[in-house]
Amino acid sequence: MSQPTFRGVLVPALTPFQPDLSPDAGALLHHCRWLLEQGADGLVVFGTTSEANSLGVEERIKLLEHLLDNGIPGSALMPGTGTSALTDTVRLTAHAVSHGCAGVLMLPPFYYKDVSDAGLFASYSEVIQRVGATELHIYLYHIPPIAQVGISLELIGRLLDEYADTIVGLKDSSDDWQHTAVILKEYPALATFCGSEEYLLETLRNGGAGSITATGNVNPAGIRRIFERWQETDAESLQEGITRMRRCFDGYAPIPALKAIAADFYEAPGWRTVRPPLCALSETERAALMTTLGQLGFTMGGTLSDSGVSADDA
Amino acid sequence: MSQPTFRGVLVPALTPFQPDLSPDAGALLHHCRWLLEQGADGLVVFGTTSEANSLGVEERIKLLEHLLDNGIPGSALMPGTGTSALTDTVRLTAHAVSHGCAGVLMLPPFYYKDVSDAGLFASYSEVIQRVGATELHIYLYHIPPIAQVGISLELIGRLLDEYADTIVGLKDSSDDWQHTAVILKEYPALATFCGSEEYLLETLRNGGAGSITATGNVNPAGIRRIFERWQETDAESLQEGITRMRRCFDGYAPIPALKAIAADFYEAPGWRTVRPPLCALSETERAALMTTLGQLGFTMGGTLSDSGVSADDA
Repeated sequence: MSQPTFRGVLVPALTPFQPDLSPDAGALLHHCRWLLEQGADGLVVFGTTSEANSLGVEERIKLLEHLLDNGIPGSALMPGTGTSALTDTVRLTAHAVSHGCAGVLMLPPFYYKDVSDAGLFASYSEVIQRVGATELHIYLYHIPPIAQVGISLELIGRLLDEYADTIVGLKDSSDDWQHTAVILKEYPALATFCGSEEYLLETLRNGGAGSITATGNVNPAGIRRIFERWQETDAESLQEGITRMRRCFDGYAPIPALKAIAADFYEAPGWRTVRPPLCALSETERAALMTTLGQLGFTMGGTLSDSGVSADDA
Repeated sequence: MSQPTFRGVLVPALTPFQPDLSPDAGALLHHCRWLLEQGADGLVVFGTTSEANSLGVEERIKLLEHLLDNGIPGSALMPGTGTSALTDTVRLTAHAVSHGCAGVLMLPPFYYKDVSDAGLFASYSEVIQRVGATELHIYLYHIPPIAQVGISLELIGRLLDEYADTIVGLKDSSDDWQHTAVILKEYPALATFCGSEEYLLETLRNGGAGSITATGNVNPAGIRRIFERWQETDAESLQEGITRMRRCFDGYAPIPALKAIAADFYEAPGWRTVRPPLCALSETERAALMTTLGQLGFTMGGTLSDSGVSADDA
């Protein structure tokens, strides 16, 4: 089996939009640089949080090239490349690999439901064979609450049996720690990332690789401290702090909420823009979220709070 | 409100593939011609049954142009154009309208779940405004079992209030007759199509426009007899016949099953090919399905059976 290419805290970078809803490549580049400066171990551009499935193939290709052309290294990039259409997935994946991206996060085809493991295996298999590159490193993306189509334990096993050099990791966004625990136990060679930092400490204690988490967009350094210090005595209190921070998002649509925080931080109201079918937070929701986060002492970019949430001393 | 552009029995045409899984444009053209000869009132190319969401945007555009260039009239075409990405939906819709298609069947964006009616309204609204064509006629596509994201009664109302000249119809694939009945009652001006011919007679009796049904690929004339004779005394027995035929598919994956029948009819085994994540029927399943249909006296293209299923005398 190939060595996984990533470990630590990776961020599914938000995609900022212009007023006409076209992607704002400059603002995305700026955000990606900031995330790396804050210690993010990798950037999952075009993840669910990135509104990637509201973007067309050409838009994704152009944005990725803009990042690479402006100094974001391929070694830090794990673009999402899984779509509902086989040919689009092949195209995005081949493009990412040929441009030096160290890995790709791959959704299963998600339109048709109740599909069999055999069909999903055939889908990943076709993509791997068509891309035909030894440099291809796939991280499977299991997110049943949204994609509805999940990646079963049996499917993971079958893919590892056939493509051990290509299938190197998995993001588990089932939001079910017991499920993550089973994956960690049954497939220890896989680089498994929890999809919520709430399970980061437990993931690391059970041999996992880290977390790929939406909240990393606004709290990368705070979350990464767990990865740095998970074997230290303060690990549990750090975990409690970031979990408390994550809980502030309960009841809000997560992507619009994160964008509202980014808009404040970057002093750029345009950051609040989302593409339909998502809706920006109302002014009331935004104010309430900011109040809650303020009470916790949280500010994006890390003013140290007594809750241990963030980390300007990290 | 604009006049709806379609009535009757429309067929979401199956998409045949080459052995390398690329679309077989010639075989699709041949199938579309056959469906029209059999009396289909319109062709919904790129519907769910067409495996459209397993095709890329360019593939769909090329196929549509091949049909138009070879004499399939735009007046008979209602391509599916709804994708998960706003820009792709706009591109496919604008292309269809500019090439003279009389309508489009439009899924809501289907990746993000639990989205609000406001977000879905914004999505349809953006598409309508960006396409910006008075010739645009949208048929809303409600298929919650697969897309998961549905089109609520409130959303229909809001869209009709704002875009009465553009939103002319709806396909209800909820497989819930009570739901279809409510739409027919609340929005009588909308051309409402049931997604299963099982409800065709009831749909017509309640003022609906007809059916857009997968089974139309193999039994177009049989199903269309209901549309021709729904006010006649034999309408109920005709309905019983086509319902009995549809029931034969219970327990089979519908798209592979229909393709297996088409492969026999066209004497072209390649027709059995599906794109992942779907899987072709096994030989055992195929044989069992053919036996069941044979017992009913059914053959694609319509040898008259004593069950009244099909219609070589129509």
